[in-house]
Amino acid sequence: MTFEILSVGTELLLGSIVNTNAQYLSRRLSELGFNVYYTTVVGDNPHRLKSALETAAGRADAVITTGGLGPTVDDLTKETIAEFCGVKCVMDEESRQRIIDRFSVGNREIPENNYKQAEMPEGCIILKNDNGTAPGAIIESENCTFIMLPGPPSEMKPMFDDLVEPYLEQFSDGVIRSKSIRIFGLGESKVDEMLGDLMNSSHNPTIAPYAKPGQVELRITAKADTVEKAKEMLKPVEQKIRDVLGDKVYGTGMDNSLENVVVEHLREKGLVTVTAESCTGGLIAEKITRIPGSSECFECGYVTYSNEKKEKLLGVKKDTLDRYGAVSEETALEMSRGALENSGADIAVAVTGIAGPGGGSEEKPVGLVYISICTKDFHKAYKFNFAGSRDMVRERTSLYALDLIRRYIKGDLKG
Amino acid sequence: MTFEILSVGTELLLGSIVNTNAQYLSRRLSELGFNVYYTTVVGDNPHRLKSALETAAGRADAVITTGGLGPTVDDLTKETIAEFCGVKCVMDEESRQRIIDRFSVGNREIPENNYKQAEMPEGCIILKNDNGTAPGAIIESENCTFIMLPGPPSEMKPMFDDLVEPYLEQFSDGVIRSKSIRIFGLGESKVDEMLGDLMNSSHNPTIAPYAKPGQVELRITAKADTVEKAKEMLKPVEQKIRDVLGDKVYGTGMDNSLENVVVEHLREKGLVTVTAESCTGGLIAEKITRIPGSSECFECGYVTYSNEKKEKLLGVKKDTLDRYGAVSEETALEMSRGALENSGADIAVAVTGIAGPGGGSEEKPVGLVYISICTKDFHKAYKFNFAGSRDMVRERTSLYALDLIRRYIKGDLKG
Repeated sequence: MTFEILSVGTELLLGSIVNTNAQYLSRRLSELGFNVYYTTVVGDNPHRLKSALETAAGRADAVITTGGLGPTVDDLTKETIAEFCGVKCVMDEESRQRIIDRFSVGNREIPENNYKQAEMPEGCIILKNDNGTAPGAIIESENCTFIMLPGPPSEMKPMFDDLVEPYLEQFSDGVIRSKSIRIFGLGESKVDEMLGDLMNSSHNPTIAPYAKPGQVELRITAKADTVEKAKEMLKPVEQKIRDVLGDKVYGTGMDNSLENVVVEHLREKGLVTVTAESCTGGLIAEKITRIPGSSECFECGYVTYSNEKKEKLLGVKKDTLDRYGAVSEETALEMSRGALENSGADIAVAVTGIAGPGGGSEEKPVGLVYISICTKDFHKAYKFNFAGSRDMVRERTSLYALDLIRRYIKGDLKG
Repeated sequence: MTFEILSVGTELLLGSIVNTNAQYLSRRLSELGFNVYYTTVVGDNPHRLKSALETAAGRADAVITTGGLGPTVDDLTKETIAEFCGVKCVMDEESRQRIIDRFSVGNREIPENNYKQAEMPEGCIILKNDNGTAPGAIIESENCTFIMLPGPPSEMKPMFDDLVEPYLEQFSDGVIRSKSIRIFGLGESKVDEMLGDLMNSSHNPTIAPYAKPGQVELRITAKADTVEKAKEMLKPVEQKIRDVLGDKVYGTGMDNSLENVVVEHLREKGLVTVTAESCTGGLIAEKITRIPGSSECFECGYVTYSNEKKEKLLGVKKDTLDRYGAVSEETALEMSRGALENSGADIAVAVTGIAGPGGGSEEKPVGLVYISICTKDFHKAYKFNFAGSRDMVRERTSLYALDLIRRYIKGDLKG
């Protein structure tokens, strides 16, 4: 079954917003095993919308539209598709009541044009909207199925996940379940190489990689008759991936960031961390404190940009700075030791490096970074050579620092 | 003249990446006064690409493609369009030499398939790529002009701005010049209200607003016979905006961030700043140190998340914390005073607040933030109530803190 995504909205053609809806639907459909061959954007213009519908219906089995379901005169998607399919729009009492209920919460008056959203194509499947006033709809016409979703991502995504995905299961030969395995410290091609046959021969479950800076997410997707069977099929694949990649796997779940996992580990063990940052300028502390509840495991951080402040706040010796320089293993070690001792925390992480674009030399090029971990019975520095812009060097440094904390807690760092 | 954007790449149809290229081009074309009626995404498949080209060329005067210009067998845009237009691709010696020169920098070996990028459609206009190996191309065929740009945004954007925009001026009835006015601390609707007629009646120059968190960018665009005239037309409009919005205007230029302007002001005056952060957890220091050269005006930052560390590192009195709490005007004032005195910097900025989602009370709700500025002859705290998620509260706090530093340096803060 082939799909086409048709995004409706002049704001997209003016470039006022980026089309994240098309990306979300493309990704979800491909995970569900469906092909998307084209996506199109068209403005709030009935003639051009009708022409785009004709083109799409002529080449796809199903068309998913986003946008144009709202209350204003510009919102024309439902009306245009209904006309295209030769059906009328009629008031749906249940949808009308849901609009009234939604407005009654704040005792708000209902603008008359809002009721237009409850006029639904005759014979359609109505998709309830729990996050807004505009219901979605599915029209199964002879040659093409039209699935209409609202434009705001906060309404579109849950409607797709909760109502459209189960609907689409009839066109698939079973139910589908996915799990994301999150990997740090390996590039996409390295993961591919290490997993070899497991990935290349993956059919059901499939394994699809998504790369982010310093990270790879592997999405395992299984198709089966029942949810239980699909979930059972995911387990051995996850286990094989974990067997091959070992401690490079830091977590599971789509929105589970590295800082999330680190804060979770710290809280589980009742440990407090302290940061001493030079080239990252506060980015590591900032990432940790993004996580609600991080105050339990983070008391303070030092951003020591100048040599003087490395001496004064962290007790780095002047002699060390003079002999080895600010960007050196020795300075990194003294920074982490000083941060640990001054703060009374359980784990100190310190970073010093050359983020660029200036400041590099042949001996110490841009991208050279030392990260040190210090606890009462562990003290070590690690050397990195990161590629890329100032932002990239800082980002990678902060992620590797977080990953070293994670691996220390898991017992994976050797003295 | 109407345009269509055709993005080529299977990774877009799989939803692996979001199509920011289409947004950028849509925005730039609409600023230049051209209409975009459709944008389409198609995969790396020659049949479907050809079909999409036929559709696009049938309804637009010009088609801009992104992607598919690289060295691999999957990269087919140039070959497919050349075939569509009935021209051959031939080796372009200058483009070939540019590829050799690019690889020679790191003494890297040139993979044979890279030369394919120098095979250009006969008679085309070649668009040099200063940021990658794949040149772009323009083919002016009878009914439609095809403009081919590379897929990576870091190559596509400068190629459009530097080479395609000047080329497009011939199709406009004059030249076009824009200027961005950057505004902090006013919402889009407030800017609209304050500027009133100036915005609503804007025709040439036009004024278009773009909202970001805490910020608004006003893009003024003028059309004239010559560059000089267009630039002259921008000036009085910019002046009127500055007259009305006063010190809310913090800078000009599309990529000129608030932290950029703050670092510029600090360096101009030879001032050093220090940060003392609680709820932002390092975000202010991180933003300042994003800017190359910030080491001249930033020596250190304190992230004091716990009360104990506010006392120990910044000298906040235990009595102050007990009596007024960590989130109070009194604590903010002592934090900034302590940071100034301990560091020897010229300007200290301190923030303390409740970022949420937990930790709020009726008296001190989530979003309550105090920001204090301290210098040798200025000492004041400002109270804010920010709406939104934890991330939003932290982001807004950091931006208002930066803006207070900016306004202090400009002499706009009253004691």
